[in-house]
Amino acid sequence: MTSGRELDWSAVSPRSTAEEAAETRGAIMSRAMVRASTEGLEGLTLGHLADDLGLSKAGVVGPFGSKQALQLAVLQLAIVGFTDAVWKPVATLRAGRERLVAACDRWIDHLADPPLPGGCFITTVATEWDGREGPVRDAVVVAQGRWLRVLHADAEVAVRARELPGDVDPAQVAFELNGIAMSLNQAVQLFHDADAPARARLAAARVLAPPSGTRRRSRSK
Amino acid sequence: MTSGRELDWSAVSPRSTAEEAAETRGAIMSRAMVRASTEGLEGLTLGHLADDLGLSKAGVVGPFGSKQALQLAVLQLAIVGFTDAVWKPVATLRAGRERLVAACDRWIDHLADPPLPGGCFITTVATEWDGREGPVRDAVVVAQGRWLRVLHADAEVAVRARELPGDVDPAQVAFELNGIAMSLNQAVQLFHDADAPARARLAAARVLAPPSGTRRRSRSK
Repeated sequence: MTSGRELDWSAVSPRSTAEEAAETRGAIMSRAMVRASTEGLEGLTLGHLADDLGLSKAGVVGPFGSKQALQLAVLQLAIVGFTDAVWKPVATLRAGRERLVAACDRWIDHLADPPLPGGCFITTVATEWDGREGPVRDAVVVAQGRWLRVLHADAEVAVRARELPGDVDPAQVAFELNGIAMSLNQAVQLFHDADAPARARLAAARVLAPPSGTRRRSRSK
Repeated sequence: MTSGRELDWSAVSPRSTAEEAAETRGAIMSRAMVRASTEGLEGLTLGHLADDLGLSKAGVVGPFGSKQALQLAVLQLAIVGFTDAVWKPVATLRAGRERLVAACDRWIDHLADPPLPGGCFITTVATEWDGREGPVRDAVVVAQGRWLRVLHADAEVAVRARELPGDVDPAQVAFELNGIAMSLNQAVQLFHDADAPARARLAAARVLAPPSGTRRRSRSK
């Protein structure tokens, strides 16, 4: 963190310029993610964003080339944030019910105390874009579809391993867990309902109940 | 439908003017409801709406006084539409599990084949407004809260009448049914998933399962 002011290398060094550009892009994306979590990606007001960052509107869009490219970059950043918070900590667990239960726990934690002011970013943009067309909608479909397939895959393993009842449909599990998450997100965001996380945990535990007769064989060790 | 053109009463009769004004308001609200179901109420573009209706922007807002008053009027119209489609047909049924099951059936029908292009209007505006402040958000909270209380109340009656297991929490029922509806709405709107209504019915049937040992006593008279 030397200032290098004596020679003002920052103005001539290509490396510094690239670093600065990356920093600006990062700052714009972070701020846009915070705003978009409440305003939506289409509702994102470039003027507000420019004011927040002390930039011109052109300065906000410029590093991305277009508002759409900015929207897509922000969406990817939000997906990385979700993956880091919810999936990464459980990814190395054994596939099946154990990992599914752990992922749901993290998911509920994430929604109960969300890092972004608007709560679940994907819910906000999925609802905003489900009736629109274009690359942002397509990217939302890919991201949400991927997450539902992750849940589906672990449910499938769990059924095969008899960790879930044999008549359980993995697609049904993914559908119901997604609903629980959406209801939780609404309860927290719209009603500030402090009981909602416990409700979500109870509902998820029912969806992921082991086969009856399975007396939770101790896995503690 | 006489034209009355010989005397052009429409230009002088106060009754005709009032009727015309009401008609214009109605046309604006209907069109705005369709647009807002995909664009959201804040995302509602007055310019597009004006183009659709062959009016100026001022002509669109004028009859309501402000964009916010228009937003609130459109929200109320959407609530009436939902109530007419989902609640009115079952309202006269006996309170309790029977009415709850019937209401969920109608709710799932409504989301599976929604009258508005953006699917569930309340989901769209609840997600749009959960991170904003003001009278529109407040009205969304009231509307969605009222619906959850309707579900809660019938679940409460059902538990007391032993139509649902005694350990069922009515608030949990409302929370889970709401999640099923939201997951269905997303599956239909985002993924065009034709299997989703059946999944929603299965999930709702589990949430509303009668106490074990209750062998569906025939109520078919």
